[in-house]
Amino acid sequence: METRIDSQLLEKAVGELSKLPGIGRKTALRLALHLLRKDPEEAKALGESLIEMREKISYCARCHNISEEETCPICSDSRRDQKTVCVVENVKDVITIEATHQHHGLYHVLGGLISPLDGIGPSDIEIESLVERVSKENIQEVILALSPTLEGDTTNFYIFRKLNELPVKVTMLARGLSVGNELEYTDELTLGKSIQNRIPFS
Amino acid sequence: METRIDSQLLEKAVGELSKLPGIGRKTALRLALHLLRKDPEEAKALGESLIEMREKISYCARCHNISEEETCPICSDSRRDQKTVCVVENVKDVITIEATHQHHGLYHVLGGLISPLDGIGPSDIEIESLVERVSKENIQEVILALSPTLEGDTTNFYIFRKLNELPVKVTMLARGLSVGNELEYTDELTLGKSIQNRIPFS
Repeated sequence: METRIDSQLLEKAVGELSKLPGIGRKTALRLALHLLRKDPEEAKALGESLIEMREKISYCARCHNISEEETCPICSDSRRDQKTVCVVENVKDVITIEATHQHHGLYHVLGGLISPLDGIGPSDIEIESLVERVSKENIQEVILALSPTLEGDTTNFYIFRKLNELPVKVTMLARGLSVGNELEYTDELTLGKSIQNRIPFS
Repeated sequence: METRIDSQLLEKAVGELSKLPGIGRKTALRLALHLLRKDPEEAKALGESLIEMREKISYCARCHNISEEETCPICSDSRRDQKTVCVVENVKDVITIEATHQHHGLYHVLGGLISPLDGIGPSDIEIESLVERVSKENIQEVILALSPTLEGDTTNFYIFRKLNELPVKVTMLARGLSVGNELEYTDELTLGKSIQNRIPFS
């Protein structure tokens, strides 16, 4: 049922909200009516924060992570290990890996994965700039932290071949059991990998 | 896992987005990163539409529906039946009922339902103004279009008693089978009502 909204201003706000991914027209209307019930300051704070964020955030010239400066806070942090670079698909993955507190080096954000079906080739993502960084900076280890999917594996393999001639160690995230998951429910492929890559008991 | 975001501008936008109902921190981050990938004009259009909507929309002095003017477009529309008023819980219900194209009269938005458990009494919602409208305007029928819940029924009954002394016909939405639903899955109470309120076959 298409809902007609009598107010053009409400209609416009609903239209803009429903352009967001996963937000349908019904949800957009619910959100807009919520804002109408709240203090005007709340809508103002939300609206202005979105505009300011988009205007002032751009991308780090070195690692392509989001950044308010030319170089992002991670690249600029001299306490971080400048010799280890973790390659990720997107900005969200940087945030996710940072939350583990297990990576103390830098990042390189590809901005996508190689996916012939979607028409995304190696030149559409930041692989050339990675190879250039590895040739020019004194990088000793590249950690491939891409999703264990067809696209991720293809991209891993492409990057591995590209870096093969350079004096750099290339590693990738371990495939194995998910912590907290029952062995019984682990798929055979993952279980197989976890046997191949078994680690000393400690 | 609490995600730390390195950009204060992104953090602020995520914070504001996650104040919206049904939007958690993860979804807020996804929406913000989506806007960062898009044209700055898109974030600007969204942000400004929310601010403008909240600043310029207020409530109709007559029916309490949202309105950009003192009187809403429905109340101002002389082609609508000025003698029939449909009483609804909120603004969203006006939009829903308008979409049926079955009501050609005016509305009265209560802004809630009587709910002793939530501390909402008759004086917290727009009942007094409804009674006043009915006394002063030449209203011949009040259609109670509230949800068939405990709160809706309580509010229906309260309004019915209040209007009882006035020369106005009070009706309420029919309870019956949902169109397209199997008889078998209709609850007994609704099925019972649909027998009591059976209508001539046409």
